[in-house]
Amino acid sequence: MLNKKMQKLGEERSVIREIFEYGNARAKQIGRENVFDFSLGNPSVPAPDGVRTEIERLLRELPSEKLHGYTSAAGAPEVREAVARYVTKTFGVPMRSDLVYMTCGAAASLAVTLNALAEEGDEFVVLTPCFPEYQVFIEQAGGKPVPVRTDENFHIDLSALASAIGERTKAVLVNSPNNPTGAVYGEEELTALARLLKEKSAQYKKPVFIIADEPYRELTYGAKVPYIPALYSETIVCYSFSKSLSLAGERIGYIAVSPACAGSEEIFSAVCGAGRSLGYVCAPALFQRVCAKLLGQSGDIRAYERNRDRLYNALIKAGFTCSKPQGAFYLFMKSPLPSATEFCEMAKKHELLLVPSDSFGIEGYVRISTCVDYGMIERSLPAFSALAKECGL
Amino acid sequence: MLNKKMQKLGEERSVIREIFEYGNARAKQIGRENVFDFSLGNPSVPAPDGVRTEIERLLRELPSEKLHGYTSAAGAPEVREAVARYVTKTFGVPMRSDLVYMTCGAAASLAVTLNALAEEGDEFVVLTPCFPEYQVFIEQAGGKPVPVRTDENFHIDLSALASAIGERTKAVLVNSPNNPTGAVYGEEELTALARLLKEKSAQYKKPVFIIADEPYRELTYGAKVPYIPALYSETIVCYSFSKSLSLAGERIGYIAVSPACAGSEEIFSAVCGAGRSLGYVCAPALFQRVCAKLLGQSGDIRAYERNRDRLYNALIKAGFTCSKPQGAFYLFMKSPLPSATEFCEMAKKHELLLVPSDSFGIEGYVRISTCVDYGMIERSLPAFSALAKECGL
Repeated sequence: MLNKKMQKLGEERSVIREIFEYGNARAKQIGRENVFDFSLGNPSVPAPDGVRTEIERLLRELPSEKLHGYTSAAGAPEVREAVARYVTKTFGVPMRSDLVYMTCGAAASLAVTLNALAEEGDEFVVLTPCFPEYQVFIEQAGGKPVPVRTDENFHIDLSALASAIGERTKAVLVNSPNNPTGAVYGEEELTALARLLKEKSAQYKKPVFIIADEPYRELTYGAKVPYIPALYSETIVCYSFSKSLSLAGERIGYIAVSPACAGSEEIFSAVCGAGRSLGYVCAPALFQRVCAKLLGQSGDIRAYERNRDRLYNALIKAGFTCSKPQGAFYLFMKSPLPSATEFCEMAKKHELLLVPSDSFGIEGYVRISTCVDYGMIERSLPAFSALAKECGL
Repeated sequence: MLNKKMQKLGEERSVIREIFEYGNARAKQIGRENVFDFSLGNPSVPAPDGVRTEIERLLRELPSEKLHGYTSAAGAPEVREAVARYVTKTFGVPMRSDLVYMTCGAAASLAVTLNALAEEGDEFVVLTPCFPEYQVFIEQAGGKPVPVRTDENFHIDLSALASAIGERTKAVLVNSPNNPTGAVYGEEELTALARLLKEKSAQYKKPVFIIADEPYRELTYGAKVPYIPALYSETIVCYSFSKSLSLAGERIGYIAVSPACAGSEEIFSAVCGAGRSLGYVCAPALFQRVCAKLLGQSGDIRAYERNRDRLYNALIKAGFTCSKPQGAFYLFMKSPLPSATEFCEMAKKHELLLVPSDSFGIEGYVRISTCVDYGMIERSLPAFSALAKECGL
């Protein structure tokens, strides 16, 4: 009667959403201040003031039917030009506005790019642990996700990757700064990746693309985030303003096809076609213009750094094992119990809501969001200590 | 190397877009005021003042990280409740907020609904002439569009429809007020449609759904637009605020599954799953809230009526044949030449930009948008007269 696969996708609420709803219910029982919810990746710092100022200016200066009317499918020309200029200036890659496609956020960027590239049975390599929705988007596009485990520090394991790439490999998804691990891939690492993919492309006589998923680009704590198209021409960048500008709910981002990529214009056409067929008429018009004005700006990232430092230091002191994230706003902590799910259930008894790593494609870890209120972190520390004790740390 | 079907979809710019671009180029040559562009369906009246007031209020009263943060995938609870209350009160159908799913506009509503319902090979009946993108969305979802011609007044031809419905028919798409014809289906007509679909559902022992595509619901000139779920329980309403509130670029609408529909909760789950898999994380957060506040309001629809009347009367007087639209903002005029494309080329010489009907699934007509500046209509009338003379009318 209906599409069972879609029904299943809709019914199995994501683990993260499940925990979030539990937290809301629990808050009603014992008070919001006594529940320590570290599950969601919703930016917790205000949007830069410029967002409000720019919205107010646009409301005053543009007639509403122009401001809120359709833009071209790929975005308003002046917005695409602003993005291209910004990329060119910031990363030294001569981006062209006719290769920039404005989207409804990172998920849309990925879904559209995958649909543009995928032919039935194509393989897409994901570096695990990774964002759980990669699998959903790849399968929807008719592709097959091929998970490749990162190394013990969550960096690219080149030899594992080399053995996973074959004739049907269309692309490798690269997410740095990484959700959930906070790893940032350095220039040397990405140069080695580029070298491998060039070899593989030559071997199979067709490009292996990089899909660079970059919603956390600006969220780093000192680490430099190399611009992948500068290192590897067959790259499609999927960007979102969700995290940097704290606009996650407004659904605004872009796809930029590397201008040095062979067949970049055909790829761009396929991006337009995929956007059209998935029902994305254009990206939200008001926020296209707002973001064009705020390129390069971000919310108070230092607040996330302060959160990371406070929590990371406390967890290490309590005896937990955790690598220090270089970017994004998550801590990826080793579960002291073999089963992360069991550990999360134990944590729940201390009112700590953590996400087990299983849906990220790896066992034995938990993800702890640091895009939370600093006060909640402070209040949660005794609970983390008690949890460590209960685990015998 | 990439998905050729998507590339083709992206390359064949829609006929409408092609004409629009021609108009822009021509305006540069001879001045904007001398080009009469009737191609696009972009609302030409301002958004109601309440849109701006409500945006400004939300910016003042909600912290930005809440205002612009993720909502639940199906929409902010208070927004879904407002929509359900409005539908219940306005149409007398007890809508449930848990069956309301906020979307990124009409195209997203359709794409998500079709993906929720379609199983490979399912047939979806479209009543031609119809919106050209129906075919794109149906095929993307794995379905097959089955065109059924409407009668000479562009109303439902029940016997043609009856012969087109078979074992594989999943749904009939109903768009009233209609793009491109302006037809509004009355209560009697829809009751007869409901009766037929009940018979067919019984015959094939499975529901034949109605997908009610309603972006023009409020844009009528006296005609009543019956609420289809009140007449037929197996209905899924795809709504958009694009036209009524002149917010076409902001991508905001909703899907409402009829609460009387058998398996409504499973269908709603499939809607959530389809939205998830197509990359729709949530509908734009700010405009969800704005629209919840402005339910039932609309821009100055009388301006469209004035446009329709002025142009319709002038066309009839000039000798053209055209049925008077009861809703939406298009005139669907008979081409005096057998080929509408040839007629549009002839019109171009008079600087009149019209859309030939072929991409709407019918030959021999042109679509003339009336969501344009009244002054342009006035200026264009001598050109229409000259065109009529050239055609020997």
